[in-house]
Amino acid sequence: MKNKQYITDNSISIIATGGTIDKIYFDAKSEYEVGPPNAIEVLQKFNLQIPYTVTSLMRKDSLDLTVNDREQIAAAVAADRNSRIIITHGTDTMPETARHIISCRAAAGKTVVLTGSLLPAMFTTSDAIFNIGCALGTVQSAAAGVYIVMNGRVFAGDRVRKNRAAGVFEQL
Amino acid sequence: MKNKQYITDNSISIIATGGTIDKIYFDAKSEYEVGPPNAIEVLQKFNLQIPYTVTSLMRKDSLDLTVNDREQIAAAVAADRNSRIIITHGTDTMPETARHIISCRAAAGKTVVLTGSLLPAMFTTSDAIFNIGCALGTVQSAAAGVYIVMNGRVFAGDRVRKNRAAGVFEQL
Amino acid sequence: MKNKQYITDNSISIIATGGTIDKIYFDAKSEYEVGPPNAIEVLQKFNLQIPYTVTSLMRKDSLDLTVNDREQIAAAVAADRNSRIIITHGTDTMPETARHIISCRAAAGKTVVLTGSLLPAMFTTSDAIFNIGCALGTVQSAAAGVYIVMNGRVFAGDRVRKNRAAGVFEQL
Amino acid sequence: MKNKQYITDNSISIIATGGTIDKIYFDAKSEYEVGPPNAIEVLQKFNLQIPYTVTSLMRKDSLDLTVNDREQIAAAVAADRNSRIIITHGTDTMPETARHIISCRAAAGKTVVLTGSLLPAMFTTSDAIFNIGCALGTVQSAAAGVYIVMNGRVFAGDRVRKNRAAGVFEQL
Repeated sequence: MKNKQYITDNSISIIATGGTIDKIYFDAKSEYEVGPPNAIEVLQKFNLQIPYTVTSLMRKDSLDLTVNDREQIAAAVAADRNSRIIITHGTDTMPETARHIISCRAAAGKTVVLTGSLLPAMFTTSDAIFNIGCALGTVQSAAAGVYIVMNGRVFAGDRVRKNRAAGVFEQL
Repeated sequence: MKNKQYITDNSISIIATGGTIDKIYFDAKSEYEVGPPNAIEVLQKFNLQIPYTVTSLMRKDSLDLTVNDREQIAAAVAADRNSRIIITHGTDTMPETARHIISCRAAAGKTVVLTGSLLPAMFTTSDAIFNIGCALGTVQSAAAGVYIVMNGRVFAGDRVRKNRAAGVFEQL
Repeated sequence: MKNKQYITDNSISIIATGGTIDKIYFDAKSEYEVGPPNAIEVLQKFNLQIPYTVTSLMRKDSLDLTVNDREQIAAAVAADRNSRIIITHGTDTMPETARHIISCRAAAGKTVVLTGSLLPAMFTTSDAIFNIGCALGTVQSAAAGVYIVMNGRVFAGDRVRKNRAAGVFEQL
Repeated sequence: MKNKQYITDNSISIIATGGTIDKIYFDAKSEYEVGPPNAIEVLQKFNLQIPYTVTSLMRKDSLDLTVNDREQIAAAVAADRNSRIIITHGTDTMPETARHIISCRAAAGKTVVLTGSLLPAMFTTSDAIFNIGCALGTVQSAAAGVYIVMNGRVFAGDRVRKNRAAGVFEQL
């Protein structure tokens, strides 16, 4: 059965948790807010030749994520029937969430890639499309494990930090 | 010695051969031409946290590539001291070049990823940034081999074709 | 009758003749061609609060325009029931067409603004949206006459040339 | 003396007061703020063939503008040696500022055009470039008076309102 096989081998789960990547601008309030997962639009635009699903798990600035939130993310990873998972996430605490997923072994046997962006996806100069592309290449190619993909680099999920002053992710 | 190791293990070679991705528009002639490798600008924009080099090997529409050109590309791959190589290439004959590299075993022990774009990188709707991101994730994560990365999918280099009517790459 | 008055006083005719502004890229042929009027999409995007019509009169590089073509453009201007007309046009011979419209008095009592772009509208760095905006402001505000709007400046239609080397329009 | 005449007749003053058009995103704080006048970058990009100056008078959300602020804006208009002035301004109270300038006769003999944008200039879908283009065409072509240019339309400054629900400016 082609369909079943297809899903088993290749389908990618994208779990959106919020963060800068999904920030949109509300003219009615003259402010930014985390909106629906922008990854959806990006992926539709490029005629992806691989099945994927997008789930909006939460819409939070990553500075506002609680222990409960991280447990919910880890549980979603553990429960996912697909073995290839991208998590879009705010950048400020992305390493903490990666470490939480590692420490509770939620990703056993799965390839989990966290990514996000330093500028909202709607900005002309945003890194969102580039980072989602980089995450997609990684999630299809990397061995089981937890990774952070930012600034064009595939980092081990527990050996990376955000250098806020420089505006880049660095290896520990 | 950190530096040497860094280059040995991680540095990425980007070999530009031309194609749509590098097409620019010359007002003076009212026509387009293959220009210098646009990948350079893309990568500078995102503060890549991994060393890379860009080499402009040729500037050709892929329909104009000869057997000689493909041998030159394969030779560049074989001679490259880095084991992680991205080749930007016109889309029309990208599969032929991938097969040529495979058949002459130029990529032995190396991870080689071919990518390009269906619209010039300078277009607002171009897939260039997304594809280069996807290729970067793949080249860092995939086992040795030759791959084509288009439409968000990592294809085995010898099992893919371009469906021109649909404007997408498909698995064979 | 508000509606009739509205059309009489305010409606804007946009006549597309081709040129760089409407150049699109055909992947199937790996080349550029003059496509349908891109002005349409631009205007839809901005929720224009003024009625307008778009007519695709011809699709030509302005270097290919003949005397017959210019007469056809002038006749379209003369026949137009609206008194506010924007002509999108290739940049290379835009001044010639403006002079032709002036010399045959096709624009009597009308405000006619020619504009175009130095880069195709689909390019991220295109001047198309800016120029169309500038033309719209001019066509609603200027006295009857023939104008060329390029590089943010409103030129009298018979006192302007394109400086190809510098890539700008200049006053004569 | 060409130069003096040029400045007297043609030079355009751009007075930036803040608003959505100049909103940028600060990753370090995960929030937006009104930044320096974005109009500057826009204009540099298009090789303007007309002299202009940009003054950053204030950096405020237009909902935060006080009576004092509006008096300062009107005073800047009255004191300006150029007779062609563009004011970039937040959209929410743009009509109030236009009416204030009219009521205190600060624009006597001058053509004053207020514009702004519904989305920050840095957004891919922003109307900023289009609106600034439209304002530039208007300021060079219109008779003395105070105008608001939004949604591709030139409104009389005292006969326009923002319809927030619809996200457009409408004639009163």
